[in-house]
Amino acid sequence: MTDDPIYHVDGDLVPASEATVSVDDRGFRYGDAAFETLRAYGGRIFAWDAHVERLERTCEALSLAHGLSAADLRARIDETLAANDLADAYVRLSITRGVQPGKLTPAPEVDPTVVVYVSPLPRGGLEGNPVWNSPATVETVETRRAPDEALPATAKTHNYLNGILARAELAADSDEALLCDLEGRVTEGATSNLCFVRDGAIHTPTTDGPVLPGITRDIVLELAREDGIPVHEGRYEPADVLEADEAVLTNRTWELRPIATLDGHAIGGGPITDRLAGLYDERVEESCYRAE
Amino acid sequence: MTDDPIYHVDGDLVPASEATVSVDDRGFRYGDAAFETLRAYGGRIFAWDAHVERLERTCEALSLAHGLSAADLRARIDETLAANDLADAYVRLSITRGVQPGKLTPAPEVDPTVVVYVSPLPRGGLEGNPVWNSPATVETVETRRAPDEALPATAKTHNYLNGILARAELAADSDEALLCDLEGRVTEGATSNLCFVRDGAIHTPTTDGPVLPGITRDIVLELAREDGIPVHEGRYEPADVLEADEAVLTNRTWELRPIATLDGHAIGGGPITDRLAGLYDERVEESCYRAE
Repeated sequence: MTDDPIYHVDGDLVPASEATVSVDDRGFRYGDAAFETLRAYGGRIFAWDAHVERLERTCEALSLAHGLSAADLRARIDETLAANDLADAYVRLSITRGVQPGKLTPAPEVDPTVVVYVSPLPRGGLEGNPVWNSPATVETVETRRAPDEALPATAKTHNYLNGILARAELAADSDEALLCDLEGRVTEGATSNLCFVRDGAIHTPTTDGPVLPGITRDIVLELAREDGIPVHEGRYEPADVLEADEAVLTNRTWELRPIATLDGHAIGGGPITDRLAGLYDERVEESCYRAE
Repeated sequence: MTDDPIYHVDGDLVPASEATVSVDDRGFRYGDAAFETLRAYGGRIFAWDAHVERLERTCEALSLAHGLSAADLRARIDETLAANDLADAYVRLSITRGVQPGKLTPAPEVDPTVVVYVSPLPRGGLEGNPVWNSPATVETVETRRAPDEALPATAKTHNYLNGILARAELAADSDEALLCDLEGRVTEGATSNLCFVRDGAIHTPTTDGPVLPGITRDIVLELAREDGIPVHEGRYEPADVLEADEAVLTNRTWELRPIATLDGHAIGGGPITDRLAGLYDERVEESCYRAE
Protein backbone atom coordinates (compact mmCIF):
# COMPACT_ATOMS: atom_id res chain seq x y z
CA MET A 1 0.00 0.00 0.00
CA THR A 2 1.51 3.29 -1.14
CA ASP A 3 0.55 6.85 -0.33
CA ASP A 4 -1.84 6.63 -3.26
CA PRO A 5 -4.40 3.99 -2.34
CA ILE A 6 -6.64 2.42 -4.95
CA TYR A 7 -10.30 3.37 -4.86
CA HIS A 8 -13.25 1.80 -6.65
CA VAL A 9 -15.18 4.32 -8.74
CA ASP A 10 -18.18 3.39 -10.80
CA GLY A 11 -16.94 -0.14 -11.39
CA ASP A 12 -13.25 0.55 -11.89
CA LEU A 13 -10.23 0.32 -9.63
CA VAL A 14 -8.33 3.60 -9.90
CA PRO A 15 -5.53 5.30 -7.95
CA ALA A 16 -7.01 7.77 -5.45
CA SER A 17 -5.09 10.59 -7.12
CA GLU A 18 -7.06 9.93 -10.33
CA ALA A 19 -10.37 8.99 -8.73
CA THR A 20 -12.97 11.52 -9.82
CA VAL A 21 -16.68 12.10 -10.33
CA SER A 22 -18.39 14.36 -12.82
CA VAL A 23 -19.04 17.91 -11.63
CA ASP A 24 -22.60 17.23 -12.81
CA ASP A 25 -22.93 14.29 -10.42
CA ARG A 26 -25.70 15.07 -7.97
CA GLY A 27 -23.43 13.86 -5.19
CA PHE A 28 -21.24 16.87 -5.93
CA ARG A 29 -23.86 19.45 -6.94
CA TYR A 30 -26.21 18.80 -4.03
CA GLY A 31 -24.66 16.26 -1.66
CA ASP A 32 -27.38 13.94 -3.00
CA ALA A 33 -25.76 10.69 -1.90
CA ALA A 34 -25.81 8.02 0.80
CA PHE A 35 -22.75 6.67 2.55
CA GLU A 36 -21.53 4.20 5.15
CA THR A 37 -18.30 4.15 7.12
CA LEU A 38 -17.13 0.58 7.68
CA ARG A 39 -14.18 -1.25 9.14
CA ALA A 40 -12.38 -4.28 7.85
CA TYR A 41 -10.70 -6.42 10.53
CA GLY A 42 -8.54 -9.27 9.31
CA GLY A 43 -9.98 -8.84 5.82
CA ARG A 44 -13.63 -9.08 6.91
CA ILE A 45 -16.19 -6.28 7.09
CA PHE A 46 -17.53 -6.00 10.62
CA ALA A 47 -21.33 -5.90 10.99
CA TRP A 48 -21.89 -5.88 7.23
CA ASP A 49 -25.60 -6.76 7.47
CA ALA A 50 -26.25 -3.82 9.79
CA HIS A 51 -24.52 -1.48 7.33
CA VAL A 52 -26.55 -2.81 4.41
CA GLU A 53 -29.72 -2.28 6.37
CA ARG A 54 -28.87 1.29 7.35
CA LEU A 55 -27.75 2.12 3.81
CA GLU A 56 -31.15 0.97 2.60
CA ARG A 57 -32.88 3.16 5.18
CA THR A 58 -30.85 6.13 3.97
CA CYS A 59 -31.68 5.40 0.33
CA GLU A 60 -35.36 5.05 1.18
CA ALA A 61 -35.29 8.44 2.91
CA LEU A 62 -33.71 9.90 -0.25
CA SER A 63 -36.02 7.95 -2.62
CA LEU A 64 -32.76 6.74 -4.18
CA ALA A 65 -33.54 3.47 -5.97
CA HIS A 66 -29.98 2.54 -6.88
CA GLY A 67 -30.82 -1.00 -7.96
CA LEU A 68 -27.57 -2.51 -6.67
CA SER A 69 -27.55 -5.71 -4.63
CA ALA A 70 -25.75 -6.01 -1.31
CA ALA A 71 -23.57 -8.71 -2.91
CA ASP A 72 -22.55 -6.33 -5.70
CA LEU A 73 -21.63 -3.61 -3.20
CA ARG A 74 -19.73 -6.08 -1.06
CA ALA A 75 -17.81 -7.39 -4.08
CA ARG A 76 -16.66 -3.85 -4.87
CA ILE A 77 -15.43 -3.42 -1.30
CA ASP A 78 -13.67 -6.77 -1.28
CA GLU A 79 -11.99 -6.02 -4.62
CA THR A 80 -10.79 -2.69 -3.29
CA LEU A 81 -9.35 -4.22 -0.13
CA ALA A 82 -7.61 -6.90 -2.22
CA ALA A 83 -6.21 -4.35 -4.69
CA ASN A 84 -4.66 -2.48 -1.76
CA ASP A 85 -3.56 -5.67 -0.01
CA LEU A 86 -5.37 -4.42 3.09
CA ALA A 87 -6.80 -6.57 5.88
CA ASP A 88 -7.34 -3.88 8.53
CA ALA A 89 -8.87 -0.81 7.03
CA TYR A 90 -11.22 2.11 7.15
CA VAL A 91 -13.76 1.79 4.31
CA ARG A 92 -16.20 4.36 3.04
CA LEU A 93 -18.95 3.34 0.63
CA SER A 94 -20.79 6.15 -1.16
CA ILE A 95 -23.74 5.84 -3.54
CA THR A 96 -24.88 8.98 -5.33
CA ARG A 97 -27.93 9.61 -7.50
CA GLY A 98 -25.48 10.02 -10.39
CA VAL A 99 -25.56 12.53 -13.23
CA GLN A 100 -29.02 13.76 -14.09
CA PRO A 101 -30.26 16.64 -16.25
CA GLY A 102 -30.09 20.08 -14.65
CA LYS A 103 -33.20 19.86 -12.48
CA LEU A 104 -33.21 19.76 -8.70
CA THR A 105 -36.17 17.38 -8.64
CA PRO A 106 -34.71 13.86 -8.74
CA ALA A 107 -35.59 11.72 -11.75
CA PRO A 108 -36.94 8.29 -10.79
CA GLU A 109 -34.51 6.48 -13.10
CA VAL A 110 -31.11 6.41 -11.44
CA ASP A 111 -27.68 5.53 -12.82
CA PRO A 112 -25.88 5.65 -9.47
CA THR A 113 -22.23 6.47 -8.91
CA VAL A 114 -20.59 4.09 -6.46
CA VAL A 115 -17.33 5.00 -4.75
CA VAL A 116 -15.35 2.81 -2.35
CA TYR A 117 -12.61 4.56 -0.37
CA VAL A 118 -10.11 2.70 1.78
CA SER A 119 -7.22 3.58 4.00
CA PRO A 120 -5.14 1.48 6.41
CA LEU A 121 -6.48 1.35 9.96
CA PRO A 122 -4.77 -1.07 12.35
CA ARG A 123 -7.10 -3.18 14.37
CA GLY A 124 -6.30 -2.09 17.86
CA GLY A 125 -8.56 -3.97 20.25
CA LEU A 126 -7.43 -7.26 21.77
CA GLU A 127 -4.05 -7.21 20.09
CA GLY A 128 -3.20 -3.57 19.87
CA ASN A 129 -4.03 0.00 20.69
CA PRO A 130 -7.11 2.01 19.81
CA VAL A 131 -6.87 4.31 16.77
CA TRP A 132 -7.20 7.37 18.97
CA ASN A 133 -4.19 8.58 20.93
CA SER A 134 -6.05 9.72 24.01
CA PRO A 135 -9.57 10.10 25.40
CA ALA A 136 -11.63 12.80 23.71
CA THR A 137 -11.80 16.49 24.51
CA VAL A 138 -15.42 17.45 23.83
CA GLU A 139 -17.28 20.76 23.67
CA THR A 140 -20.98 21.52 23.45
CA VAL A 141 -21.55 23.91 20.53
CA GLU A 142 -24.08 26.52 19.42
CA THR A 143 -24.90 24.72 16.16
CA ARG A 144 -28.04 22.64 16.68
CA ARG A 145 -28.62 19.20 15.24
CA ALA A 146 -30.93 19.56 12.23
CA PRO A 147 -34.42 18.32 13.15
CA ASP A 148 -35.91 15.24 11.50
CA GLU A 149 -38.62 17.34 9.86
CA ALA A 150 -35.90 19.05 7.78
CA LEU A 151 -33.29 16.29 7.38
CA PRO A 152 -34.04 12.82 8.73
CA ALA A 153 -31.34 11.77 11.21
CA THR A 154 -31.65 8.15 10.06
CA ALA A 155 -30.20 9.18 6.69
CA LYS A 156 -26.39 9.17 6.47
CA THR A 157 -25.75 11.44 3.49
CA HIS A 158 -23.18 13.69 1.84
CA ASN A 159 -25.08 16.65 3.35
CA TYR A 160 -22.65 16.90 6.25
CA LEU A 161 -22.53 20.63 6.76
CA ASN A 162 -24.39 20.53 10.06
CA GLY A 163 -21.52 18.53 11.54
CA ILE A 164 -18.87 20.67 9.84
CA LEU A 165 -20.36 23.86 11.29
CA ALA A 166 -20.33 22.20 14.70
CA ARG A 167 -16.70 21.13 14.32
CA ALA A 168 -15.71 24.59 13.06
CA GLU A 169 -16.76 26.02 16.45
CA LEU A 170 -14.22 23.93 18.37
CA ALA A 171 -11.00 25.10 19.93
CA ALA A 172 -7.98 23.75 18.05
CA ASP A 173 -7.20 21.06 20.64
CA SER A 174 -10.74 19.69 20.93
CA ASP A 175 -11.69 16.44 19.24
CA GLU A 176 -15.44 16.44 18.99
CA ALA A 177 -18.45 18.74 19.10
CA LEU A 178 -21.52 17.68 21.06
CA LEU A 179 -24.69 18.95 19.37
CA CYS A 180 -27.97 19.63 21.14
CA ASP A 181 -31.35 19.66 19.46
CA LEU A 182 -33.45 22.83 19.18
CA GLU A 183 -34.83 22.23 22.68
CA GLY A 184 -31.33 22.01 24.18
CA ARG A 185 -31.31 18.25 24.61
CA VAL A 186 -28.06 16.42 23.92
CA THR A 187 -28.16 14.44 20.65
CA GLU A 188 -24.75 13.26 19.40
CA GLY A 189 -21.31 14.27 18.25
CA ALA A 190 -20.55 15.43 14.71
CA THR A 191 -19.34 11.91 13.86
CA SER A 192 -20.14 9.91 17.00
CA ASN A 193 -22.85 8.81 19.39
CA LEU A 194 -22.75 9.47 23.12
CA CYS A 195 -23.23 7.10 26.06
CA PHE A 196 -22.73 7.98 29.70
CA VAL A 197 -22.84 6.05 32.96
CA ARG A 198 -24.64 7.11 36.12
CA ASP A 199 -25.13 4.87 39.15
CA GLY A 200 -24.07 1.80 37.21
CA ALA A 201 -26.51 2.31 34.32
CA ILE A 202 -25.88 3.34 30.70
CA HIS A 203 -27.74 6.39 29.43
CA THR A 204 -27.86 7.49 25.81
CA PRO A 205 -29.93 9.98 23.81
CA THR A 206 -32.92 8.25 22.24
CA THR A 207 -33.12 7.85 18.47
CA ASP A 208 -36.67 9.19 18.79
CA GLY A 209 -34.82 12.51 18.68
CA PRO A 210 -32.53 13.66 15.85
CA VAL A 211 -29.83 11.05 16.52
CA LEU A 212 -28.20 8.82 13.92
CA PRO A 213 -28.78 5.18 14.88
CA GLY A 214 -25.09 4.37 15.02
CA ILE A 215 -24.16 0.75 14.42
CA THR A 216 -21.42 0.87 17.05
CA ARG A 217 -23.96 2.45 19.42
CA ASP A 218 -26.40 -0.42 18.76
CA ILE A 219 -23.75 -3.05 19.37
CA VAL A 220 -22.54 -1.39 22.57
CA LEU A 221 -26.11 -1.17 23.94
CA GLU A 222 -26.74 -4.81 23.01
CA LEU A 223 -23.51 -5.90 24.73
CA ALA A 224 -24.47 -3.92 27.85
CA ARG A 225 -27.93 -5.53 28.02
CA GLU A 226 -26.46 -9.01 27.50
CA ASP A 227 -24.03 -8.28 30.33
CA GLY A 228 -26.81 -7.21 32.70
CA ILE A 229 -25.97 -3.50 32.63
CA PRO A 230 -29.18 -1.42 32.67
CA VAL A 231 -29.63 0.73 29.53
CA HIS A 232 -31.78 3.86 29.39
CA GLU A 233 -32.50 5.63 26.10
CA GLY A 234 -33.88 9.05 26.94
CA ARG A 235 -33.67 12.82 26.59
CA TYR A 236 -30.88 14.50 28.48
CA GLU A 237 -29.35 17.90 28.94
CA PRO A 238 -25.63 18.70 28.96
CA ALA A 239 -25.84 19.01 32.77
CA ASP A 240 -26.80 15.32 32.98
CA VAL A 241 -23.65 14.36 31.09
CA LEU A 242 -21.49 16.61 33.25
CA GLU A 243 -22.69 14.72 36.32
CA ALA A 244 -21.88 11.32 34.80
CA ASP A 245 -19.48 8.84 36.37
CA GLU A 246 -18.20 7.83 32.94
CA ALA A 247 -18.83 9.05 29.39
CA VAL A 248 -17.86 7.63 26.04
CA LEU A 249 -18.20 8.38 22.34
CA THR A 250 -18.82 5.58 19.87
CA ASN A 251 -18.36 5.30 16.14
CA ARG A 252 -17.05 2.83 13.62
CA THR A 253 -13.52 4.21 13.62
CA TRP A 254 -13.06 5.09 17.28
CA GLU A 255 -15.06 2.08 18.55
CA LEU A 256 -15.38 3.24 22.20
CA ARG A 257 -13.52 6.43 23.04
CA PRO A 258 -13.83 7.78 26.59
CA ILE A 259 -14.58 11.46 27.05
CA ALA A 260 -11.73 13.03 29.02
CA THR A 261 -13.48 16.37 29.40
CA LEU A 262 -16.75 17.99 28.37
CA ASP A 263 -16.55 21.79 28.28
CA GLY A 264 -13.46 21.54 30.46
CA HIS A 265 -15.05 19.36 33.15
CA ALA A 266 -13.24 16.06 33.70
CA ILE A 267 -15.39 12.94 33.24
CA GLY A 268 -13.30 10.09 31.81
CA GLY A 269 -13.97 6.41 31.32
CA GLY A 270 -14.15 3.83 34.11
CA PRO A 271 -15.01 0.24 34.89
CA ILE A 272 -18.17 0.04 32.77
CA THR A 273 -16.49 1.69 29.77
CA ASP A 274 -13.58 -0.74 30.11
CA ARG A 275 -15.94 -3.70 30.41
CA LEU A 276 -17.87 -2.66 27.27
CA ALA A 277 -14.68 -1.95 25.31
CA GLY A 278 -13.48 -5.46 26.17
CA LEU A 279 -16.79 -7.03 25.15
CA TYR A 280 -16.68 -5.04 21.91
CA ASP A 281 -13.19 -6.32 21.12
CA GLU A 282 -14.41 -9.86 21.74
CA ARG A 283 -17.34 -9.29 19.40
CA VAL A 284 -14.94 -8.17 16.68
CA GLU A 285 -12.77 -11.20 17.40
CA GLU A 286 -15.73 -13.58 17.10
CA SER A 287 -17.16 -11.95 13.99
CA CYS A 288 -14.04 -11.39 11.97
CA TYR A 289 -11.45 -13.88 13.18
CA ARG A 290 -13.20 -16.91 14.66
CA ALA A 291 -16.02 -17.24 12.12
CA GLU A 292 -15.71 -20.17 9.66
CA MET B 1 -22.28 25.58 -28.59
CA THR B 2 -22.63 21.82 -28.79
CA ASP B 3 -24.38 19.35 -26.50
CA ASP B 4 -21.13 19.22 -24.55
CA PRO B 5 -20.58 22.70 -23.16
CA ILE B 6 -17.21 23.80 -21.85
CA TYR B 7 -16.88 24.23 -18.10
CA HIS B 8 -14.13 25.89 -16.08
CA VAL B 9 -12.66 23.54 -13.48
CA ASP B 10 -9.85 24.54 -11.19
CA GLY B 11 -8.39 26.97 -13.71
CA ASP B 12 -8.88 24.96 -16.87
CA LEU B 13 -11.49 25.03 -19.61
CA VAL B 14 -12.70 21.46 -20.14
CA PRO B 15 -15.61 19.80 -21.95
CA ALA B 16 -18.44 19.11 -19.50
CA SER B 17 -18.21 15.40 -20.29
CA GLU B 18 -14.65 15.41 -18.92
CA ALA B 19 -15.18 17.93 -16.10
CA THR B 20 -14.51 16.19 -12.82
CA VAL B 21 -13.49 16.71 -9.22
CA SER B 22 -11.62 14.38 -6.92
CA VAL B 23 -13.77 11.98 -4.91
CA ASP B 24 -11.74 13.31 -1.95
CA ASP B 25 -12.90 16.86 -2.62
CA ARG B 26 -14.91 18.06 0.38
CA GLY B 27 -17.50 19.39 -2.02
CA PHE B 28 -18.24 15.78 -2.94
CA ARG B 29 -17.67 14.06 0.40
CA TYR B 30 -19.66 16.50 2.51
CA GLY B 31 -21.30 19.08 0.24
CA ASP B 32 -18.78 21.46 1.80
CA ALA B 33 -19.02 24.15 -0.88
CA ALA B 34 -20.63 27.50 -1.69
CA PHE B 35 -22.38 28.32 -4.93
CA GLU B 36 -24.19 31.04 -6.83
CA THR B 37 -26.63 30.77 -9.72
CA LEU B 38 -26.21 33.67 -12.12
CA ARG B 39 -27.52 34.83 -15.45
CA ALA B 40 -25.68 36.36 -18.35
CA TYR B 41 -27.74 38.65 -20.54
CA GLY B 42 -26.12 39.95 -23.70
CA GLY B 43 -22.77 38.71 -22.43
CA ARG B 44 -22.97 40.56 -19.10
CA ILE B 45 -23.55 39.06 -15.66
CA PHE B 46 -26.63 40.61 -14.09
CA ALA B 47 -26.28 41.92 -10.51
CA TRP B 48 -22.69 40.66 -10.21
CA ASP B 49 -21.91 42.72 -7.12
CA ALA B 50 -24.88 41.28 -5.26
CA HIS B 51 -23.73 37.75 -6.12
CA VAL B 52 -20.20 38.46 -4.93
CA GLU B 53 -21.57 39.81 -1.67
CA ARG B 54 -23.83 36.83 -1.05
CA LEU B 55 -21.06 34.39 -1.97
CA GLU B 56 -18.89 36.05 0.65
CA ARG B 57 -21.66 35.71 3.25
CA THR B 58 -21.92 32.02 2.42
CA CYS B 59 -18.17 31.54 2.70
CA GLU B 60 -18.11 33.38 6.02
CA ALA B 61 -20.84 31.08 7.34
CA LEU B 62 -18.71 28.10 6.25
CA SER B 63 -15.42 29.64 7.51
CA LEU B 64 -14.22 29.02 3.95
CA ALA B 65 -11.34 31.41 3.31
CA HIS B 66 -10.89 30.68 -0.39
CA GLY B 67 -8.56 33.62 -1.01
CA LEU B 68 -9.88 34.33 -4.52
CA SER B 69 -10.71 37.85 -5.64
CA ALA B 70 -14.02 38.78 -7.22
CA ALA B 71 -12.08 39.80 -10.33
CA ASP B 72 -10.50 36.34 -10.55
CA LEU B 73 -13.88 34.63 -10.23
CA ARG B 74 -15.41 36.96 -12.78
CA ALA B 75 -12.57 36.30 -15.22
CA ARG B 76 -13.24 32.57 -14.99
CA ILE B 77 -16.92 33.14 -15.74
CA ASP B 78 -16.17 35.46 -18.66
CA GLU B 79 -13.67 32.98 -20.10
CA THR B 80 -16.24 30.22 -19.87
CA LEU B 81 -18.93 32.26 -21.61
CA ALA B 82 -16.45 33.19 -24.33
CA ALA B 83 -15.30 29.60 -24.80
CA ASN B 84 -18.92 28.59 -25.34
CA ASP B 85 -19.69 31.65 -27.47
CA LEU B 86 -22.61 32.35 -25.16
CA ALA B 87 -24.19 35.73 -24.49
CA ASP B 88 -27.42 34.61 -22.80
CA ALA B 89 -26.75 31.89 -20.31
CA TYR B 90 -27.37 30.19 -17.01
CA VAL B 91 -24.14 30.23 -14.98
CA ARG B 92 -23.34 28.33 -11.81
CA LEU B 93 -20.25 29.21 -9.81
CA SER B 94 -19.17 26.70 -7.14
CA ILE B 95 -16.30 27.05 -4.69
CA THR B 96 -15.45 24.03 -2.54
CA ARG B 97 -13.08 23.66 0.38
CA GLY B 98 -11.03 21.40 -1.90
CA VAL B 99 -9.21 18.19 -1.03
CA GLN B 100 -8.16 17.94 2.60
CA PRO B 101 -6.87 15.05 4.69
CA GLY B 102 -9.52 12.62 5.93
CA LYS B 103 -10.84 14.68 8.85
CA LEU B 104 -14.30 16.23 9.04
CA THR B 105 -12.97 19.28 10.87
CA PRO B 106 -12.00 21.80 8.19
CA ALA B 107 -8.33 22.78 8.00
CA PRO B 108 -7.82 26.56 8.00
CA GLU B 109 -5.56 26.43 4.93
CA VAL B 110 -7.73 26.00 1.87
CA ASP B 111 -6.84 25.09 -1.71
CA PRO B 112 -10.33 25.65 -3.12
CA THR B 113 -11.84 23.95 -6.13
CA VAL B 114 -13.64 26.39 -8.43
CA VAL B 115 -16.15 25.18 -10.99
CA VAL B 116 -18.03 27.33 -13.51
CA TYR B 117 -20.97 25.67 -15.25
CA VAL B 118 -22.82 27.28 -18.14
CA SER B 119 -25.75 26.42 -20.34
CA PRO B 120 -27.66 28.46 -22.91
CA LEU B 121 -30.65 30.35 -21.51
CA PRO B 122 -32.40 32.77 -23.88
CA ARG B 123 -33.09 36.14 -22.40
CA GLY B 124 -36.87 36.30 -22.56
CA GLY B 125 -37.97 39.58 -21.05
CA LEU B 126 -38.51 42.61 -23.24
CA GLU B 127 -37.62 40.82 -26.43
CA GLY B 128 -38.81 37.28 -25.84
CA ASN B 129 -40.61 34.81 -23.65
CA PRO B 130 -39.84 33.75 -20.10
CA VAL B 131 -37.84 30.54 -19.63
CA TRP B 132 -40.82 28.83 -18.02
CA ASN B 133 -43.62 27.55 -20.23
CA SER B 134 -46.48 28.35 -17.90
CA PRO B 135 -47.18 29.70 -14.41
CA ALA B 136 -46.11 27.42 -11.58
CA THR B 137 -48.06 24.61 -9.98
CA VAL B 138 -47.02 24.70 -6.33
CA GLU B 139 -47.61 22.40 -3.36
CA THR B 140 -46.94 22.90 0.32
CA VAL B 141 -44.92 19.91 1.60
CA GLU B 142 -44.27 18.07 4.85
CA THR B 143 -40.51 18.65 4.75
CA ARG B 144 -39.68 21.69 6.87
CA ARG B 145 -37.08 24.31 6.01
CA ALA B 146 -33.98 23.62 8.11
CA PRO B 147 -33.73 26.18 10.92
CA ASP B 148 -30.90 28.73 11.00
CA GLU B 149 -29.55 27.19 14.21
CA ALA B 150 -28.72 24.02 12.24
CA LEU B 151 -27.95 25.36 8.76
CA PRO B 152 -27.91 29.12 8.20
CA ALA B 153 -30.36 30.07 5.45
CA THR B 154 -28.05 32.87 4.30
CA ALA B 155 -25.56 30.20 3.16
CA LYS B 156 -26.11 28.86 -0.37
CA THR B 157 -24.24 25.55 -0.28
CA HIS B 158 -23.97 22.14 -1.89
CA ASN B 159 -25.97 20.79 1.07
CA TYR B 160 -29.20 20.88 -0.91
CA LEU B 161 -30.95 17.81 0.45
CA ASN B 162 -33.59 19.78 2.33
CA GLY B 163 -34.86 21.12 -1.01
CA ILE B 164 -34.52 17.74 -2.74
CA LEU B 165 -36.62 16.03 -0.06
CA ALA B 166 -39.22 18.78 -0.51
CA ARG B 167 -39.24 18.34 -4.30
CA ALA B 168 -39.42 14.55 -3.96
CA GLU B 169 -42.81 14.96 -2.25
CA LEU B 170 -44.37 16.64 -5.27
CA ALA B 171 -46.85 15.15 -7.72
CA ALA B 172 -45.25 14.61 -11.13
CA ASP B 173 -46.90 17.65 -12.73
CA SER B 174 -46.02 20.12 -9.96
CA ASP B 175 -43.19 22.60 -10.43
CA GLU B 176 -42.22 23.74 -6.98
CA ALA B 177 -42.49 22.80 -3.31
CA LEU B 178 -43.35 25.49 -0.77
CA LEU B 179 -41.59 24.79 2.53
CA CYS B 180 -42.81 25.96 5.93
CA ASP B 181 -40.61 26.42 8.97
CA LEU B 182 -40.98 24.27 12.08
CA GLU B 183 -43.75 26.59 13.34
CA GLY B 184 -45.73 26.17 10.12
CA ARG B 185 -44.90 29.58 8.68
CA VAL B 186 -44.28 29.83 4.96
CA THR B 187 -40.58 30.30 4.10
CA GLU B 188 -39.71 29.72 0.43
CA GLY B 189 -39.68 27.26 -2.44
CA ALA B 190 -36.93 24.67 -2.89
CA THR B 191 -35.21 26.99 -5.41
CA SER B 192 -37.28 30.17 -5.24
CA ASN B 193 -38.60 32.93 -3.03
CA LEU B 194 -42.28 33.76 -2.64
CA CYS B 195 -44.12 37.07 -2.94
CA PHE B 196 -47.86 37.53 -2.86
CA VAL B 197 -50.21 40.48 -3.29
CA ARG B 198 -53.13 41.38 -1.03
CA ASP B 199 -55.07 44.63 -1.26
CA GLY B 200 -52.46 46.18 -3.51
CA ALA B 201 -49.47 45.44 -1.24
CA ILE B 202 -46.63 42.97 -1.65
CA HIS B 203 -46.10 40.46 1.16
CA THR B 204 -43.09 38.19 1.46
CA PRO B 205 -41.67 35.95 4.22
CA THR B 206 -39.07 37.84 6.24
CA THR B 207 -35.43 36.80 6.03
CA ASP B 208 -35.46 36.94 9.84
CA GLY B 209 -36.82 33.41 9.41
CA PRO B 210 -35.02 30.60 7.54
CA VAL B 211 -35.31 32.22 4.11
CA LEU B 212 -32.50 32.60 1.59
CA PRO B 213 -32.06 36.31 0.79
CA GLY B 214 -32.66 35.83 -2.92
CA ILE B 215 -31.08 38.41 -5.18
CA THR B 216 -34.07 38.42 -7.52
CA ARG B 217 -36.28 38.80 -4.43
CA ASP B 218 -34.25 41.83 -3.31
CA ILE B 219 -34.46 43.45 -6.72
CA VAL B 220 -38.21 42.85 -7.01
CA LEU B 221 -38.84 44.35 -3.57
CA GLU B 222 -36.66 47.34 -4.43
CA LEU B 223 -38.51 47.88 -7.71
CA ALA B 224 -41.85 47.68 -5.90
CA ARG B 225 -40.80 50.27 -3.32
CA GLU B 226 -39.46 52.59 -6.02
CA ASP B 227 -42.77 52.23 -7.81
CA GLY B 228 -44.78 53.13 -4.71
CA ILE B 229 -46.13 49.64 -4.06
CA PRO B 230 -46.21 48.91 -0.30
CA VAL B 231 -43.94 46.01 0.74
CA HIS B 232 -44.43 43.97 3.92
CA GLU B 233 -41.85 41.42 5.06
CA GLY B 234 -43.48 39.24 7.71
CA ARG B 235 -44.45 35.80 8.91
CA TYR B 236 -47.31 34.15 7.08
CA GLU B 237 -49.17 30.89 6.99
CA PRO B 238 -50.17 28.99 3.87
CA ALA B 239 -53.76 30.23 4.41
CA ASP B 240 -52.53 33.81 3.90
CA VAL B 241 -51.09 32.87 0.52
CA LEU B 242 -54.26 31.04 -0.49
CA GLU B 243 -56.24 34.25 0.07
CA ALA B 244 -53.84 36.32 -2.05
CA ASP B 245 -54.94 38.27 -5.12
CA GLU B 246 -51.68 37.41 -6.89
CA ALA B 247 -48.70 35.21 -6.05
CA VAL B 248 -45.33 34.85 -7.69
CA LEU B 249 -42.09 32.88 -7.30
CA THR B 250 -38.77 34.57 -7.94
CA ASN B 251 -35.33 33.23 -8.69
CA ARG B 252 -32.43 33.97 -10.97
CA THR B 253 -33.59 31.61 -13.72
CA TRP B 254 -37.35 32.09 -13.59
CA GLU B 255 -37.13 35.84 -12.83
CA LEU B 256 -40.81 36.34 -11.85
CA ARG B 257 -43.02 33.28 -12.31
CA PRO B 258 -46.67 33.59 -11.30
CA ILE B 259 -48.17 30.83 -9.19
CA ALA B 260 -51.07 29.29 -11.11
CA THR B 261 -52.19 27.13 -8.20
CA LEU B 262 -51.14 26.42 -4.62
CA ASP B 263 -52.36 23.04 -3.38
CA GLY B 264 -54.90 23.05 -6.20
CA HIS B 265 -56.34 26.51 -5.39
CA ALA B 266 -56.10 28.96 -8.28
CA ILE B 267 -54.22 32.20 -7.51
CA GLY B 268 -52.34 33.41 -10.61
CA GLY B 269 -50.53 36.62 -11.41
CA GLY B 270 -52.24 39.95 -12.07
CA PRO B 271 -51.60 43.64 -12.61
CA ILE B 272 -48.95 44.05 -9.90
CA THR B 273 -47.06 40.94 -10.99
CA ASP B 274 -47.15 42.16 -14.58
CA ARG B 275 -45.97 45.61 -13.53
CA LEU B 276 -43.05 44.19 -11.54
CA ALA B 277 -42.09 41.75 -14.31
CA GLY B 278 -41.96 44.71 -16.72
CA LEU B 279 -39.85 46.78 -14.32
CA TYR B 280 -37.53 43.79 -13.84
CA ASP B 281 -37.08 43.45 -17.61
CA GLU B 282 -36.23 47.14 -17.80
CA ARG B 283 -33.68 46.75 -15.02
CA VAL B 284 -32.01 43.93 -16.95
CA GLU B 285 -32.10 46.08 -20.08
CA GLU B 286 -30.47 49.01 -18.29
CA SER B 287 -27.85 46.92 -16.51
CA CYS B 288 -26.78 44.61 -19.29
CA TYR B 289 -27.57 46.34 -22.57
CA ARG B 290 -27.60 50.12 -22.05
CA ALA B 291 -24.58 50.38 -19.74
CA GLU B 292 -21.43 51.73 -21.36
